[in-house]
Amino acid sequence: MKNQLTRVQMNVLQRIRPSRSERERLHAVTQQVIAAAQSALTSRNLRATVEVIGSAARDTWISGDHDDGLDIDVFIGFDTSTSREDLERYGLEIGKEIGIDGYTIGFAEHPYVKARCGAFAIDVVPHYRIENTRQILSAVDRTPFHQQFVTEHLGGRHDDVRLLKQFLKGAGIYGAELRTKGFSGYLCELLVIKYGSFVNVLNSVQDWKAGTCISLTSEHAHNNFISPLAVIDPVDTNRNVAAAVSLDSFSILIDAARSFLESPCTECFFPQQIPPLDVGAFRAIVKKRKTTVFGVKFDLPDLVDDIAYPQLERAHKGMLVALLRNGFSALRGDIYYDHGEAVLLFEMLVSELPAVERHEGPPVDSKRHANKFKKKYVNNPSVLSGPYVDNGRYVVELPRKYLTFPDYVAAEFKDMRSSKAILCAMNIGFQILKDEELLDSDRMRLFLARYFDRTLNNCG
Amino acid sequence: MKNQLTRVQMNVLQRIRPSRSERERLHAVTQQVIAAAQSALTSRNLRATVEVIGSAARDTWISGDHDDGLDIDVFIGFDTSTSREDLERYGLEIGKEIGIDGYTIGFAEHPYVKARCGAFAIDVVPHYRIENTRQILSAVDRTPFHQQFVTEHLGGRHDDVRLLKQFLKGAGIYGAELRTKGFSGYLCELLVIKYGSFVNVLNSVQDWKAGTCISLTSEHAHNNFISPLAVIDPVDTNRNVAAAVSLDSFSILIDAARSFLESPCTECFFPQQIPPLDVGAFRAIVKKRKTTVFGVKFDLPDLVDDIAYPQLERAHKGMLVALLRNGFSALRGDIYYDHGEAVLLFEMLVSELPAVERHEGPPVDSKRHANKFKKKYVNNPSVLSGPYVDNGRYVVELPRKYLTFPDYVAAEFKDMRSSKAILCAMNIGFQILKDEELLDSDRMRLFLARYFDRTLNNCG
Repeated sequence: MKNQLTRVQMNVLQRIRPSRSERERLHAVTQQVIAAAQSALTSRNLRATVEVIGSAARDTWISGDHDDGLDIDVFIGFDTSTSREDLERYGLEIGKEIGIDGYTIGFAEHPYVKARCGAFAIDVVPHYRIENTRQILSAVDRTPFHQQFVTEHLGGRHDDVRLLKQFLKGAGIYGAELRTKGFSGYLCELLVIKYGSFVNVLNSVQDWKAGTCISLTSEHAHNNFISPLAVIDPVDTNRNVAAAVSLDSFSILIDAARSFLESPCTECFFPQQIPPLDVGAFRAIVKKRKTTVFGVKFDLPDLVDDIAYPQLERAHKGMLVALLRNGFSALRGDIYYDHGEAVLLFEMLVSELPAVERHEGPPVDSKRHANKFKKKYVNNPSVLSGPYVDNGRYVVELPRKYLTFPDYVAAEFKDMRSSKAILCAMNIGFQILKDEELLDSDRMRLFLARYFDRTLNNCG
Repeated sequence: MKNQLTRVQMNVLQRIRPSRSERERLHAVTQQVIAAAQSALTSRNLRATVEVIGSAARDTWISGDHDDGLDIDVFIGFDTSTSREDLERYGLEIGKEIGIDGYTIGFAEHPYVKARCGAFAIDVVPHYRIENTRQILSAVDRTPFHQQFVTEHLGGRHDDVRLLKQFLKGAGIYGAELRTKGFSGYLCELLVIKYGSFVNVLNSVQDWKAGTCISLTSEHAHNNFISPLAVIDPVDTNRNVAAAVSLDSFSILIDAARSFLESPCTECFFPQQIPPLDVGAFRAIVKKRKTTVFGVKFDLPDLVDDIAYPQLERAHKGMLVALLRNGFSALRGDIYYDHGEAVLLFEMLVSELPAVERHEGPPVDSKRHANKFKKKYVNNPSVLSGPYVDNGRYVVELPRKYLTFPDYVAAEFKDMRSSKAILCAMNIGFQILKDEELLDSDRMRLFLARYFDRTLNNCG
């Protein structure tokens, strides 16, 4: 067993530990960026520190991470006497100079430059150089302290961090962004520092309970955060490094840890890819499940995932609740979002309803409302049954307005809980696709394959 | 308007005030019964009072009430020194002697004789003669006090009581039995005594609120009873005469009072009879509503209504809840019961479901249960999707066991909340009838006609 554990880790590391040539490429570009930043500062007569921050600098990155142009963060540290306007302006100017192959402007807490150097994307982040984290002026001021803490405490366990990151990737829960609601790189580093090794992390994880609180500095820590997992930031005890981790990501990690420790295998790190669903396979699945699948498809202005996902989730949930309240019950659903194309998916248990609907009126003993209700419905030719009394209230049975999912959603989407952006997008136009109509692109075919094959990574 | 109110009351009274020949018949039989009881007492050397109790004696009965052999109650009052065994024994002996055309034995608090005299059924009730209601030994001891109170206070307003009773009959809420959960004759008499006339009762009723409390003796009374209406018994202030009145009967009376006062008509007292539903009419209704109607039909040993109804209601509700929990949702339903033949009716919005079902497992962080669940469902060929994690719990999607209403009810009726007697009856055998199959007798055709035509009497 021990041998198997070691063997699997070795195998995985061979695939994820950056090669010499990769390291050299990264090293070259970081040196080049630092030099460019320093020269830009000198030419402006500015005194500021220049630091590369993140997994690249800490040597906890994974082979391939930078292949498709993932980010390197360059932090330019200014004195706290610098005004905020100057800070932002210098940041943009220096960033543009670094981008030897061009740049784009991004927006986070304030505008910043994403500079291109060959295949690399360099985020240039101006910040205040502060003494300690109590002086923080903006969220990014904290980041250099993270870098410092990890560098001082990791003590050579870089490969353990790599294994943990890849393990989380395999389980689909790596990354703190709102689409994934998982574990950040910094969180991985802290867990390895706390427990000493990748396997020790998993050993601890398998017994976690919702509400777990982890502190690297004190033995007994309390989870005062409203989240299933709290990991107290060693550089700022008011902050929960695991704030982004959802209950489901938390649970998936616990499950994956148990499975891996019981039978270690490389598939836990590199799950098998599911092929996109073709029409034949789709038909076979639907024949077995006998459900009806609908997709509400619309275009969203090209929003970044972190903006789009929470809104899509709210809209999806609002629609589910409205559907259920009207008798259309769903087995489950999902959200597809890719560069401005959104599909809210619903797999329906009930997508058609009879032509009659119960309509509840006021309590009989509330005279004014009762009179109004009766005036409206007595001798009303559209009433199918009633008014009668049920549980002290008037009830009439009326013709149902919408008998099918598409009719209902098309007519009532404006009254469902949603977000402004999505309501606006749907107002411009949307389609309701049913069953095979959903297989209209390779990405949707893959999305649907994953939807139906929804299974924990270890449950192949 | 006033004229119309008076005219309608006159018209109704012409139909419900007993005719001279009716009165004579009733008078003759009561005299005969009293004489027979007294002679039976004399021959046994017993000293006891003999009293005819109820609407017959108080002259608040309605023409036709005694035509189909409705009850006359004869109360035989013994001294409190009599032992309970003697009381019961004498009651039975005297009862049998009174029944010149035979008798049957009934069971209430203790056995009693139902004696037959021509078309009349005479309940012979032995009781203790007590000084006041604080000395009550059995529920029937209170009844003579009711008689005394009404006789002393009604003051000639017998026709108003008759009108109120017939009005309640028209609305389907006359009678305190568990099938109707309505207003008893004694309650009608008290209301007329309290408010002075039939119309004054309705004037008061139309503004009633759930929780109303009425006392005939004090001005400010509080409803300490858990019922929508409390009418404190003037002969026993611990007793609510309206305890049997359900929220719906209460509400129906309020509604009927308002409608009648707005436009008085004889139809409020004598609603139009609905014809039984034939196949053609049934098809037309179902075509409009597009629902599916199921009846679960079984035989109950010939239980009296007051025993059968609460059990049928519990079984019907238990089935509704179980159906809903399994995705089969109903618009509404009803209960048919007639001399041991029972049908639980359900009009379904959803009576068929897809072949897949969500099955929720334990929370992931509960290790022991989690392991057991995963052992069962990982690599289980019957699983359609999963196990996956949702809201911190394991979930699998399995083939649904029962896809239709009949399959589900037939297989799972034993696990639904019900009553012992009904479970026992269904265990012997039951049928599930669908749509037109339900029209298998005139009574069922009438029952279904009323079901679909469910409307307050005044809403024609």
